[in-house]
Amino acid sequence: MNNFSIALHGGAGTILRAAMSSEKEREYTSALKAALDAGFNVLKDGGTAIDAVLASTISLEDCPLFNAGKGSVFTHDGKHEMDASIMDGSTLAAGAVACLRNVRNPVLLAKEIMVHSDHVMLLGEGAEEFARIRKMKFEPDEYFYTDFRHKQLLDIVNEERTQLDHSDKKFGTVGAVACDRNGNLAAATSTGGMTNKRYNRIGDSPVIGSGTYANNRTCAISCTGHGEFFLRAVVAYDISCLMEYKGLTLEKACELVVNKKLVDLGGEGGLVAVDSQGTTSLVFNSEGMYRASKSSAGIETVLIYR
Amino acid sequence: MNNFSIALHGGAGTILRAAMSSEKEREYTSALKAALDAGFNVLKDGGTAIDAVLASTISLEDCPLFNAGKGSVFTHDGKHEMDASIMDGSTLAAGAVACLRNVRNPVLLAKEIMVHSDHVMLLGEGAEEFARIRKMKFEPDEYFYTDFRHKQLLDIVNEERTQLDHSDKKFGTVGAVACDRNGNLAAATSTGGMTNKRYNRIGDSPVIGSGTYANNRTCAISCTGHGEFFLRAVVAYDISCLMEYKGLTLEKACELVVNKKLVDLGGEGGLVAVDSQGTTSLVFNSEGMYRASKSSAGIETVLIYR
Repeated sequence: MNNFSIALHGGAGTILRAAMSSEKEREYTSALKAALDAGFNVLKDGGTAIDAVLASTISLEDCPLFNAGKGSVFTHDGKHEMDASIMDGSTLAAGAVACLRNVRNPVLLAKEIMVHSDHVMLLGEGAEEFARIRKMKFEPDEYFYTDFRHKQLLDIVNEERTQLDHSDKKFGTVGAVACDRNGNLAAATSTGGMTNKRYNRIGDSPVIGSGTYANNRTCAISCTGHGEFFLRAVVAYDISCLMEYKGLTLEKACELVVNKKLVDLGGEGGLVAVDSQGTTSLVFNSEGMYRASKSSAGIETVLIYR
Repeated sequence: MNNFSIALHGGAGTILRAAMSSEKEREYTSALKAALDAGFNVLKDGGTAIDAVLASTISLEDCPLFNAGKGSVFTHDGKHEMDASIMDGSTLAAGAVACLRNVRNPVLLAKEIMVHSDHVMLLGEGAEEFARIRKMKFEPDEYFYTDFRHKQLLDIVNEERTQLDHSDKKFGTVGAVACDRNGNLAAATSTGGMTNKRYNRIGDSPVIGSGTYANNRTCAISCTGHGEFFLRAVVAYDISCLMEYKGLTLEKACELVVNKKLVDLGGEGGLVAVDSQGTTSLVFNSEGMYRASKSSAGIETVLIYR
């Protein structure tokens, strides 16, 4: 039997200890721990990597602290547009959704697309139509509303700045990767995008190969960061290729891509990764990244700062 | 000074000599040749790879024979939704657009996004809003209408089948890759998607890394085929990685991905590619692919069948 493990993130960016109250820190730590346990318990009970990353990502989507699902940031016109994707490393099956409104758990819709359609990526109203056919849970705009995110929008809407989550440059995305008892890998990512975003912009979160990738031969990856750079660098698949074609370890591949290639390009952010031996890697080039990992070998981490 | 060259495609699939009239064959050949010359002349006059792939792709978008721009297929609700992307191998800058309506040349909007926005990928109405700000040319629905495509929709709309272009399984996408005198590479792809498609489905054409990729260190790639498989296989970037990390030639990398990896996954289609020495590769695993290439070394091909 394989080691099994899970790793997750709740976004990366300028997350400074000095700017965080101890109460806020406890809230984040406790939410990360809850999401970690949700996924790890699936693995412990013999569940699949796909079900584990779903459990962790749904827990983070349902928590208003993170920019995904409930708690998503506001677009320029005061709405919430969410993106998500998921990939199964055992089959290379994948599902993705972008510019989605009012679906409670975007990552669950990505899974429905992967399992119950001939397609990989659906957008906007078409994706919502598919969600209704699949009888997925919808929520009114009020469900996604949080005072904190609304204040962020009001603060910058007149300045015509587009913010990747917070005024202190935080890239709000959540995601998880897992390796189950059978050595199967999976990855999932979900985001509310950028505060005050316009033009139905999408970043790397719903893009297979950039924000999310999983392949039993190599690794599973979920990214968070300045999406445009992650798209141009095809980050998630790059790590897989460095392992498969160049023989790099997961750790060395993640370090090269996040702390060298992305830095050279000007791209800030990070990712969580796991290989088929259950080894996890949590790497970022920003000040901090909300992150956690837990393995059957007994390792457990819940961290925020560098 | 570098060899310079261009290669383009007008879609792949079940294109059989027996099913093609000699008049239709002449029309396709002549359109491919016109698009080829449009791009090659840019290179001959000392223009950039980006301008060359734009010239060829615009020529194919403007031609009603191909499923991109004018001549795009109809969606389930009788509209035209177009996707396109472009990438500059010298800077790794990229632009992409999906679910776009009424913009005359989607590939030009992808270029505007690449050059004049902080974003890589814009969708639907948001992309159209950006196109208006950039004063791009719009056309009414009638411009995109062709009897041939409308009949295709009527033929299958009641059968609830989704067709990738034609009743004879043709994957309608156009695209071009180029290497200019300075050894700079570029790639562009544009499509009208699938006849009778629903749910705002998008394939690989607007996805950087899957349908389109360019990097001066390796190659430029534009794909055409059953998009879902190209997305899951991250086809364009896979070829780049096989060259960069495993030392494969362009030809060997293209052969491995199209005729082995995609076939194993069940994915039908092909691609055009060029490396920084100006060597082109036009590879497909389907019955045929509308394709053409021309180089400063004097090679010129315009082909349809295997």
